[in-house]
Amino acid sequence: MSGKGLEGITAADSAICSIDGEKGELRYRGYDIHELAEASTFEEVVFLLFDGELPSRAGLAADTKRLARERAIPAALVDQLRAIPRDAHPMASLRTAVSLLGHHEPDAESHDPIVRRQISERLVACTGTLVAALHRLSLGKEPLAPKPELGLAANFLYLASGEVPSDAAARAIDVALILHADHGFNASTFSARVTAATLSDVISAATSAIGTLKGPLHGGANEKVIEMLLQIDEEGIEPEAFVLRSLEQGEKIMGFGHRVYRTEDPRATHLRRMSKALADSTGDRKWFEMSQQIEDAMREAKGLNCNVDFYSASTYHQLGLPTRLFTPLFAVSRMAGWTAHVLEQLADNRLIRPRAKYVGPGPRPYVPTTDRS
Amino acid sequence: MSGKGLEGITAADSAICSIDGEKGELRYRGYDIHELAEASTFEEVVFLLFDGELPSRAGLAADTKRLARERAIPAALVDQLRAIPRDAHPMASLRTAVSLLGHHEPDAESHDPIVRRQISERLVACTGTLVAALHRLSLGKEPLAPKPELGLAANFLYLASGEVPSDAAARAIDVALILHADHGFNASTFSARVTAATLSDVISAATSAIGTLKGPLHGGANEKVIEMLLQIDEEGIEPEAFVLRSLEQGEKIMGFGHRVYRTEDPRATHLRRMSKALADSTGDRKWFEMSQQIEDAMREAKGLNCNVDFYSASTYHQLGLPTRLFTPLFAVSRMAGWTAHVLEQLADNRLIRPRAKYVGPGPRPYVPTTDRS
Repeated sequence: MSGKGLEGITAADSAICSIDGEKGELRYRGYDIHELAEASTFEEVVFLLFDGELPSRAGLAADTKRLARERAIPAALVDQLRAIPRDAHPMASLRTAVSLLGHHEPDAESHDPIVRRQISERLVACTGTLVAALHRLSLGKEPLAPKPELGLAANFLYLASGEVPSDAAARAIDVALILHADHGFNASTFSARVTAATLSDVISAATSAIGTLKGPLHGGANEKVIEMLLQIDEEGIEPEAFVLRSLEQGEKIMGFGHRVYRTEDPRATHLRRMSKALADSTGDRKWFEMSQQIEDAMREAKGLNCNVDFYSASTYHQLGLPTRLFTPLFAVSRMAGWTAHVLEQLADNRLIRPRAKYVGPGPRPYVPTTDRS
Repeated sequence: MSGKGLEGITAADSAICSIDGEKGELRYRGYDIHELAEASTFEEVVFLLFDGELPSRAGLAADTKRLARERAIPAALVDQLRAIPRDAHPMASLRTAVSLLGHHEPDAESHDPIVRRQISERLVACTGTLVAALHRLSLGKEPLAPKPELGLAANFLYLASGEVPSDAAARAIDVALILHADHGFNASTFSARVTAATLSDVISAATSAIGTLKGPLHGGANEKVIEMLLQIDEEGIEPEAFVLRSLEQGEKIMGFGHRVYRTEDPRATHLRRMSKALADSTGDRKWFEMSQQIEDAMREAKGLNCNVDFYSASTYHQLGLPTRLFTPLFAVSRMAGWTAHVLEQLADNRLIRPRAKYVGPGPRPYVPTTDRS
């Protein structure tokens, strides 16, 4: 049995997230992603992913309050973040920051499921704080203290920009966090499970996931999309002409196609709507319309649907989010899925160790150094 | 197609290492592990793993010299290591140290295969320096500067202990490094490939691998073996009685069984010989004989062969290596295999993304918070 890149291979059971690639359906614990994006909050989704059920009204209030308290990071850790060069790749910085965070978790090595769950929750709470602190340090600014009265999305925007965001901006980021929170055995989540399955710790698993999300074939894709939009804008070329020129030159258009979906990715549907709503509300329709034209051209030329990364680029850009923060924001959200999967993996663990098909040289005798040319 | 833990699933082609689990054979690039352990050096094995061929005589001399020069780490990095708590888990410290090292690699984000290969080589050269520096800092001692005139194994022992080792001790560690350098798609190597396959960078892949090796089901196993030997010694119980008592209590005896080998792991054969030779040379036969009695008891009681971890414990302990360094030493060696696999993955890349079999709740409608109890 084989499949390059494990395509089509089932690696384990999971009760967290179901994806119907034919119908274009995504559900967290049985709840449709569209209903969650319309009515839920990221905080609620975090606890749904962790616990398998929507929290009670009182439970949600208590959980949300606790999560807000856990956003603060130790001052000693902030000092350690100062040692990271300002021009480092934001995801490389986050990889180091989360690894350093582990040294501030006194029970990081505990195998107690309750402790692991607490650390997971703190990771979800802190990742936005780490991302925003690294961002401000990279600009030569001082990190800010979290505001516990704000929701996680609003607080993230505040920590990154220094300004409390509008309700509309906060809700847009909240929805983006909901949409990105989990997606089955994507590469970063799978790497977290591979790490956890040796009975290593939650911090190590999260560090692996960040390093994996970092790649342009995964979390880095929406940055590539906005770079493309900015290039089209600068060149003043028609989006359709740009697509055809790129395809002719054998270049890849980022933000299209998906290993799992055969129809439209439901997250793309939602992000397209958000991108349009932002364009409608500001009157600046450039980024949305350019995206739409690229989408049409790609459907016509290659028959490919856009994926989650495509409209998140124009959405984030319209919200004024710096491009450097696109992939880290993905990490803030996916930390919920990563840690939920680590907890699930550890609840019924089996070492993840596939085989390689050997295609190298056959048996040959060793030649001593002195007998070599 | 499915297999929990991907057991028996072929994840990709590889030309680096072949394992015949039925015959108990392990080969790097076609060369039998026994011949390499007897006649080669770790440095030579590193270049064999990277390049696919044994280097020429002149090439080996130049490569070894370059590798020796690359062992030094920047003073600024040593200062960053001081911020890691002294009592941190040695593999958690190494995870942070390698992630920090990435910020000192100006071309860490390069997609140039030659640059990636250079970074891989520096990682192999530096890992021992990082492990030894962290070890000395944990003891409140100052890290030492590498001695380029020593081989990698001798230099590692010098950096960790402050004393230039005997030729016999250095050769024993050299052989251990050769034996541990690669082993197909073991969990840590596989995690490195999963990370690299999103087109992330070599440092991220190495960081994932360290976090994965950290777990007691993988690199942590030989530490558990020595803890068992020390416990048997302290209790004064007969090794056979200890084994039977543990099995009766449903406890696992570490260092036995392997996902791939159905007969004896050839690395175990070699390490048993090394453990015996050390016992013969010092006259202190306690640790070797205790190990042998446990091995006999396990074969009789469970029909299980010992694996690579079992005799590495008594070997390292007889060499005076602190238990805290057992897993980090594994990382010093396996860094060669990890980076060779990352370079191979990137030479013909495909995103590694398996599927999950969904076993959670079926579709259900979202219930607004206000309608919940």
